[in-house]
Amino acid sequence: MRLAILIFAFAFSMGAALADPLPSWRDGEAKSNILSFVREAVQPGNPAYIVPAERIAVFDNDGTLWAEQPFYFQLAYAIDRVGEMAKNNPDMLAQNPVLEAAAEGDMQGVLASGHDGLLDVIAASHSGMTTGDFKQSVGEWLASARHPTSGQRYHQMVYQPMIELLVYLRDNDFKTYIVSGGGIDFIRVFSEQVYGIPPEQVIGSSIRSEFQVTETTAETVKLPELFFYDDKAGKPVAINHHIGRRPVFAGGNSDGDHQMLQYTDRGGDRPGFALLIHHTDAEREWAYDKGSTIGGLDNALTEARERGWTVVDMKNDWRTVFSFQLGAQ
Amino acid sequence: MRLAILIFAFAFSMGAALADPLPSWRDGEAKSNILSFVREAVQPGNPAYIVPAERIAVFDNDGTLWAEQPFYFQLAYAIDRVGEMAKNNPDMLAQNPVLEAAAEGDMQGVLASGHDGLLDVIAASHSGMTTGDFKQSVGEWLASARHPTSGQRYHQMVYQPMIELLVYLRDNDFKTYIVSGGGIDFIRVFSEQVYGIPPEQVIGSSIRSEFQVTETTAETVKLPELFFYDDKAGKPVAINHHIGRRPVFAGGNSDGDHQMLQYTDRGGDRPGFALLIHHTDAEREWAYDKGSTIGGLDNALTEARERGWTVVDMKNDWRTVFSFQLGAQ
Repeated sequence: MRLAILIFAFAFSMGAALADPLPSWRDGEAKSNILSFVREAVQPGNPAYIVPAERIAVFDNDGTLWAEQPFYFQLAYAIDRVGEMAKNNPDMLAQNPVLEAAAEGDMQGVLASGHDGLLDVIAASHSGMTTGDFKQSVGEWLASARHPTSGQRYHQMVYQPMIELLVYLRDNDFKTYIVSGGGIDFIRVFSEQVYGIPPEQVIGSSIRSEFQVTETTAETVKLPELFFYDDKAGKPVAINHHIGRRPVFAGGNSDGDHQMLQYTDRGGDRPGFALLIHHTDAEREWAYDKGSTIGGLDNALTEARERGWTVVDMKNDWRTVFSFQLGAQ
Repeated sequence: MRLAILIFAFAFSMGAALADPLPSWRDGEAKSNILSFVREAVQPGNPAYIVPAERIAVFDNDGTLWAEQPFYFQLAYAIDRVGEMAKNNPDMLAQNPVLEAAAEGDMQGVLASGHDGLLDVIAASHSGMTTGDFKQSVGEWLASARHPTSGQRYHQMVYQPMIELLVYLRDNDFKTYIVSGGGIDFIRVFSEQVYGIPPEQVIGSSIRSEFQVTETTAETVKLPELFFYDDKAGKPVAINHHIGRRPVFAGGNSDGDHQMLQYTDRGGDRPGFALLIHHTDAEREWAYDKGSTIGGLDNALTEARERGWTVVDMKNDWRTVFSFQLGAQ
């Protein structure tokens, strides 16, 4: 009896040791770099050992954890939301052609309006309500809206290999964070359920809010004014502000993540791990880099190659991209 | 043998159950309110049960976790720092009487300069260096400076009953945060060692910073410009921004904490626990409330009494204030 238990325990622990923590990653340099880094980081006595409290891992969201084509998903929400609001309040469209385009679902018209037009759409759709009401609205949208080309729910458009990476890092006592140019309150609606990342570990762009209190309620209300734009050099600034520690692992996919990767890479006597996702798979996902208006990647890729950062070639390094494609393989 | 182990295990668990988690708190309403709230919050099936992920507890720092008299400790750092800097760069004092007063350690002169003068002192002492260099400077100061009346190190000026409360909450799977009007980077230097609160759970006021990168370094550098003032209505806004959840427990001591207590109190169908520390002990600490220029307490105390929040009478509710007074009792 005891022997049986011992054998079982041994077999079980062997199984655990041999199980591949990253089954959607094909064997290759990217995968082996990640595995080596994590194994050394958790091995006491190893020169590359990192104490658990310092195991901070940060990830961009759009194009790194979920897709960002043919346009940022949050923009799809904003446009749907303006359309919904205009039904009850058609006056909001008067004298603003970009809101009119949004209400008609005319994405090209919205995009053609440039930066100011986009800010108008975000302001109209993201402010003038409590944070709680905003989150409820996003939740309802996620439960009903569908991605324009795949037909999937937006929260199905997450990269299966990255979900595995998040779990693998957490299993090794890394604390995983999102550091996104997208909206902090938007991402918090699904980050815990989809990525296992709680709201307090989401960092993102934000608009201002103000506190409103009555005898029975106390709420933060979202205002139509930018507070912080969490992109490019804003990312390391926001990481320092929210976390107060330099990450030891960072993942991104565009030049908007370049400074966050530099901040992680140049950790003094403890250089961190910089991971750059390169969108190379026009069949299963999209292929784009330099010159793309969404997720443009140029300088960060050049530096990644110069400094030996780990570049993921999505087409070759990932066995699966989306979990809904699993059946097709 | 087995029986001995069983008896030992039983005795040990009884001891743990009977041990007072708050030995520096005298029996009374404040202590029993806290104990009841926590016991119910962690009891599955209890109507007041709170799932662990939602057990967010927030605390003001100055006057709530450590003392704030005769002036905020961070101001003492700023003044010492200006004096230090002026030794190497006397020109910085020219044409600025408040910096001159600071360099001479003339606290009354600095305080007399009002809000703008204080900002000058903070700007001069807190910016123009990397975040890392700033933290090192604060650490060195904490290791050498002494409180003007007690003669203790500043980080000895923490309230023993509040340390016990933080530990008790964490033992019950609450996540403890600091939400302070003081500087976020300043508090992060000692919060982990002194309070067991890691840097990522510190929220505070902040100045802007910018990212600077070279071939070998990547740092955030502190700028002489306010980014966020984390006081009054700013506290719930910052809590929502950093944590993205409404706290279920909040502790404060001044009108600067009033809105944070309201935000926690008015949690809809799950009202949170609001704790207000009242400085009533002129012998062991200081006695002050309404009209104090530091830690003024008026409206929050009125609302606490109206709504039945838990008010701590330091003189009567706390057996010990500072741990360095323990021997004297």
